[in-house]
Amino acid sequence: MATDQAEPEGDGTEDAYERFEERVQRISNVSNAAGVLRWDQEVVMPEEGTPARAQQLSTLSSLEHELLTADETGDLLETLEDAELSDEQEAVVREVRRQYDRETSVPAELVEEISETTANAHPKWKKAKEEDDFEEFAPVLEKLVDLKREYAEHVDPDADPYAVLFSEYEPYLDLETAERVLERLRDELVPLIDEIDASDVDLATDAFAGQFDDDDQEALARDVLDSLGYDWDRGRLDTAPHPFSSGTQFDARVTTRFDEEDLLGSITSTIHEFGHANYTLGLPDDGYGTPLGESRDLSVHESQSRLWENHVGRSRPFWEGFLPTARERFPELEDVTPEEAYEAANQVYDDNLIRVEADELTYHLHIVIRFEIERELISGDLAVEDVPEVWNDKYEEYLGVRPETDAEGCLQDIHWSHGSFGYFPTYSLGSVLAAQLYAAAEDELGDLSEDVREGEFDELNGWLRENVHQHGCRYTTPELIERATGEPFTADYFLEYVDEKYGELYDLS
Amino acid sequence: MATDQAEPEGDGTEDAYERFEERVQRISNVSNAAGVLRWDQEVVMPEEGTPARAQQLSTLSSLEHELLTADETGDLLETLEDAELSDEQEAVVREVRRQYDRETSVPAELVEEISETTANAHPKWKKAKEEDDFEEFAPVLEKLVDLKREYAEHVDPDADPYAVLFSEYEPYLDLETAERVLERLRDELVPLIDEIDASDVDLATDAFAGQFDDDDQEALARDVLDSLGYDWDRGRLDTAPHPFSSGTQFDARVTTRFDEEDLLGSITSTIHEFGHANYTLGLPDDGYGTPLGESRDLSVHESQSRLWENHVGRSRPFWEGFLPTARERFPELEDVTPEEAYEAANQVYDDNLIRVEADELTYHLHIVIRFEIERELISGDLAVEDVPEVWNDKYEEYLGVRPETDAEGCLQDIHWSHGSFGYFPTYSLGSVLAAQLYAAAEDELGDLSEDVREGEFDELNGWLRENVHQHGCRYTTPELIERATGEPFTADYFLEYVDEKYGELYDLS
Repeated sequence: MATDQAEPEGDGTEDAYERFEERVQRISNVSNAAGVLRWDQEVVMPEEGTPARAQQLSTLSSLEHELLTADETGDLLETLEDAELSDEQEAVVREVRRQYDRETSVPAELVEEISETTANAHPKWKKAKEEDDFEEFAPVLEKLVDLKREYAEHVDPDADPYAVLFSEYEPYLDLETAERVLERLRDELVPLIDEIDASDVDLATDAFAGQFDDDDQEALARDVLDSLGYDWDRGRLDTAPHPFSSGTQFDARVTTRFDEEDLLGSITSTIHEFGHANYTLGLPDDGYGTPLGESRDLSVHESQSRLWENHVGRSRPFWEGFLPTARERFPELEDVTPEEAYEAANQVYDDNLIRVEADELTYHLHIVIRFEIERELISGDLAVEDVPEVWNDKYEEYLGVRPETDAEGCLQDIHWSHGSFGYFPTYSLGSVLAAQLYAAAEDELGDLSEDVREGEFDELNGWLRENVHQHGCRYTTPELIERATGEPFTADYFLEYVDEKYGELYDLS
Repeated sequence: MATDQAEPEGDGTEDAYERFEERVQRISNVSNAAGVLRWDQEVVMPEEGTPARAQQLSTLSSLEHELLTADETGDLLETLEDAELSDEQEAVVREVRRQYDRETSVPAELVEEISETTANAHPKWKKAKEEDDFEEFAPVLEKLVDLKREYAEHVDPDADPYAVLFSEYEPYLDLETAERVLERLRDELVPLIDEIDASDVDLATDAFAGQFDDDDQEALARDVLDSLGYDWDRGRLDTAPHPFSSGTQFDARVTTRFDEEDLLGSITSTIHEFGHANYTLGLPDDGYGTPLGESRDLSVHESQSRLWENHVGRSRPFWEGFLPTARERFPELEDVTPEEAYEAANQVYDDNLIRVEADELTYHLHIVIRFEIERELISGDLAVEDVPEVWNDKYEEYLGVRPETDAEGCLQDIHWSHGSFGYFPTYSLGSVLAAQLYAAAEDELGDLSEDVREGEFDELNGWLRENVHQHGCRYTTPELIERATGEPFTADYFLEYVDEKYGELYDLS
């Protein structure tokens, strides 16, 4: 309708925002296209497809970078930062500004050098691990530490470089918060694990011993997803060597893996990835292409996978409800009781060397150790050559086990060869946040045990949709947490949850 | 090594070519990425993924267009056209110039309008076909004819507009050549089909009657691909509603379909798509990303699928060799003889209304009819409202059947709703070229019957690799044909092949 009255945005802001949004959507489409190509590469691509795929991904990545860092983006950001915008528009501008500043602050040559060095680091790490030879990996690790320190310096010369690296993965939870939480986990979990070690309770750890056919495991994984309410019209289940989930609110896919000797592992891995995909599916359709329809960062993402994996999938009511379905696929589970299944899913190991095989509790000490070592490496307080000994000392101190080789010690994970310093803490922060969110949901909805037992997840998921998923990146992570739970980020609920669960399981006083 | 002597390309050509090649590779990577997204959409994407995928594909397509039509591309083309280049470099420049000229000559608004009109035309066509109501489709068809005429006018105002449209699909075979070949097919196939109609020979048309399980059909399709030498390390087999193949020399995938009542259809469709994928796999690895590693146009592509489908897969020796494998998957075929299988695969129908159900012979009259009608539509000699009657008259004249409805007449195919005028001839040209290439291969290698019977395809495929595949777009289509066969493009071999094959099958004098 034509009108002589100027609209509030009659100063050209509307036009500028429209152009900005179009630009942001383009960037997002390129990024999502790359996501499809990576899914394809991990799940269905023929073995020899790599050379072409690597070039396709590299082109998409540089186009994305060029679109983001173009002068036009910077000009639009400046214009819009001076303009009257809606809250939602302001959130989009805030998120893009953050990415823009980061990507324009690092020289292209440094990005290129890091990329080349990590490409070279991966085979070195692999060889070092295979041959249990840390010396093989040390020089390239040292180079990566230097390069990432230089990278952080470019992004923010005044900040603690590790804080800068951490903020790549979790931009809105500051490092002090992460550190406070991780220290608390260490200080409370170490004695708890000691108590468990000292307990003479024997859990039914062999409830799922045996050989389980892969095809039947896949059918059961589909049962699990059915029971959790996965929307098959917007998703798929496939297998991948390293399970992951990816996609958009229109198409969020789950992958899992099957090991004939590890039925429980495929179930928990499927539930974990469901949690990620379910978050993505809860993002608003009409936000697709801008931060309003994109997920918050890694800790929040991980909170969703952990919530479903641990608070639902490793709960007693879940096994009470789900075991009959598992028995239909695997009649050999006939004599396993729900209690035994629950115990098997929650045993705490005492020879806990390998993170990816860890239980729900000791897992966090693996993270704490990595975190402490990374901080000192990046600050320069720890030399690369001293990493193996410090690693082993910390394992002895926190977990009561000392790795006999570096292959099962500081070389166990691939991530340093990617230069991913600062990434690991988000795993623990996600668990902690999961507990806080689950407590808030139960606070509002009442005890969810009966729902979990009945496989009735609409209420829980509705709460997550309303309080977390639908907001996309509208709020910063601390705002999102406070709005959803009424409190700032806190480890209280996680520690309460593990104290209660493991106290009862291991009959601790 | 530093030197004072100027290199032959010391004039900056080398630099310019390098920048040009990098640009071309980027464009190609974006295009290949879109290809992966389209494969995904047809084969594995969840039902509701469309809105996001449509946006991703639209972004990639506009990025590709912008990279191609940028001033930088035009400047580099001009520089390189004046420079000393190798033959291979010249071929790359030639191919990119052709794309550049075409894409820069048509205004963006017209491209947009065509795109919107076809999006709108598709549901109209669907409804019209469902309700057998040509009037429903006529207005949008008329609009598409006008728009495509306008499009052709922009590309080349001096040329026959239909020739311009045809050259979208087949840029190097001129329309006169296509017309000459199609007229000859019409003039020789119509009497041949009449003779077959008049023959009192009854072929074993029911050799494959029955119900065939989809999973077993898939296993057999894999057997077929194994036997043809498909490289599974660079390929896959999946199902799609409309079978296609796509990919690159590193990853060329086949799709097929299974219909419980049509075992023969799934076998021939699989072999057809193998032919396409096999061409792609024969392109040189080191040409990836430029026209040197990309396939020639539609007629040549179709020649590869037809060669394998018809000259191999519908041959007597193929069924002599392959039937035992088919019987292993389908014991109910025990009493079918190779001769009966061969006859079933080559029967000529007499109630031939639907192109996609046509046999190898009558197929071409469907194409000829479309071609004749399209030419007159685009030239303005035929009004849209008269299409149904002209269509039916031609079916009566050439094929001896008159469609009773437009749904099985001029509305049968989807392609006009895409605005794809000029595309159909490449199907027939591909068959004709297949026969010419197969004859040339046998001329050099000797009779291939024994190889086909033994499932020994290395020699044939080696010949195709050497004479067709490895050249990518280095030669124009006429050059490629002449180099491979020693002759210009000719329908002689196709007509000889069908005369001999069907003369013998139907006992014609």
